[in-house]
Amino acid sequence: MENYEELLGVLLEKLAPTLQNQEVKQEGEEIPVGISNRHAHLSQTAVDKLFGAGYQLTKLKDLSQPGQYACKETIIIAGPKGVIEKVRILGPVRKQSQVEILQSDSFKLGIKAPLRLSGDLSGSAGATLIGPNGSVELKEGVIVAKRHIHMLPEQAKRFGVTDGEEVTINFAGPRGGSLNQVVIRAVENSGLECHIDTEEANALGVTPNTNIVIQKN
Amino acid sequence: MENYEELLGVLLEKLAPTLQNQEVKQEGEEIPVGISNRHAHLSQTAVDKLFGAGYQLTKLKDLSQPGQYACKETIIIAGPKGVIEKVRILGPVRKQSQVEILQSDSFKLGIKAPLRLSGDLSGSAGATLIGPNGSVELKEGVIVAKRHIHMLPEQAKRFGVTDGEEVTINFAGPRGGSLNQVVIRAVENSGLECHIDTEEANALGVTPNTNIVIQKN
Repeated sequence: MENYEELLGVLLEKLAPTLQNQEVKQEGEEIPVGISNRHAHLSQTAVDKLFGAGYQLTKLKDLSQPGQYACKETIIIAGPKGVIEKVRILGPVRKQSQVEILQSDSFKLGIKAPLRLSGDLSGSAGATLIGPNGSVELKEGVIVAKRHIHMLPEQAKRFGVTDGEEVTINFAGPRGGSLNQVVIRAVENSGLECHIDTEEANALGVTPNTNIVIQKN
Repeated sequence: MENYEELLGVLLEKLAPTLQNQEVKQEGEEIPVGISNRHAHLSQTAVDKLFGAGYQLTKLKDLSQPGQYACKETIIIAGPKGVIEKVRILGPVRKQSQVEILQSDSFKLGIKAPLRLSGDLSGSAGATLIGPNGSVELKEGVIVAKRHIHMLPEQAKRFGVTDGEEVTINFAGPRGGSLNQVVIRAVENSGLECHIDTEEANALGVTPNTNIVIQKN
């Protein structure tokens, strides 16, 4: 009888990663999904240039991340091959302007925006921003946002993940599938939410009010 | 010793589906991926109305499906909320006009294009098509294409799949993941190719000249 148990132990140990992945797919704490369209974060210098000296952005509605909000104002983004109008500005102002576009926008503008996390802008793409008061030529700051999950450090501990770790998320439905390389962003002052862009949402048939669970790789 | 083998047999049988899925991920015959942007197939009646009586579409280049080609001509698609310009026409003409758009186009136009396979148009969305000679109001025919894999019946046999079956495909890379519900279309006169649209390609970081292997569900 001991021999059976030994064999069973060896087999289960070998198969543990596979079995664990499957279990996580079925259960776990749900995380709401937020779908991001293209948008811009501006520096006050850029706001001054685009909207006029000392201009203050107008809050339209609060976002899931504490202190972040969508603004009434929009701008035009221009590249060597095309323009995109009505790009929403998100507030408050930041130290460095950052424009998050879709992969298809990258083709339309004729620029090569890299896949990056917010804030990782060194060597990213440039573009011209156009507002009612003038334009700004960004040398860098244009990226395609890498999908990620915002959470507090104590929530990361509960989920068994760490800041910077990449996980997989799964979607059911008639256009279901999985997205890998979803980066955990576990820092203070975070609202629990998984951020994907509209192309990722459309490709997987994801609608607002969808929840996901984390699948560790 | 016999008892060990019996136990091992029971365990392996129970785990077979899981192990098989993983194996298929690693190997198998590769299938090229074709990325479709929005496009329109027109009836001759629609061509007559949009471009002039008896107008013949101009071939620009052949597509992977035998006899199919992209045309020089484009049209405008209009819905209650917006328009999309420069929508490529694919030839030859068909019995019924069919417009395949992206999910984001559906929002932009303000219509509810259902997720359908080509040709399955009953009760699908309507839109107005606009050409240099006039416009056509389609009562139905506008869909978001359901991802699919074209192959010959003998290829389906080789892949161990049947016409209409849904499979999963996987993509590696920094925006990797899986797409489920990819429909096998196994009919005569097919070119072996997996068709996804630009939103699906962008979401998974798929570029031209990518290959996939079929993962059975």
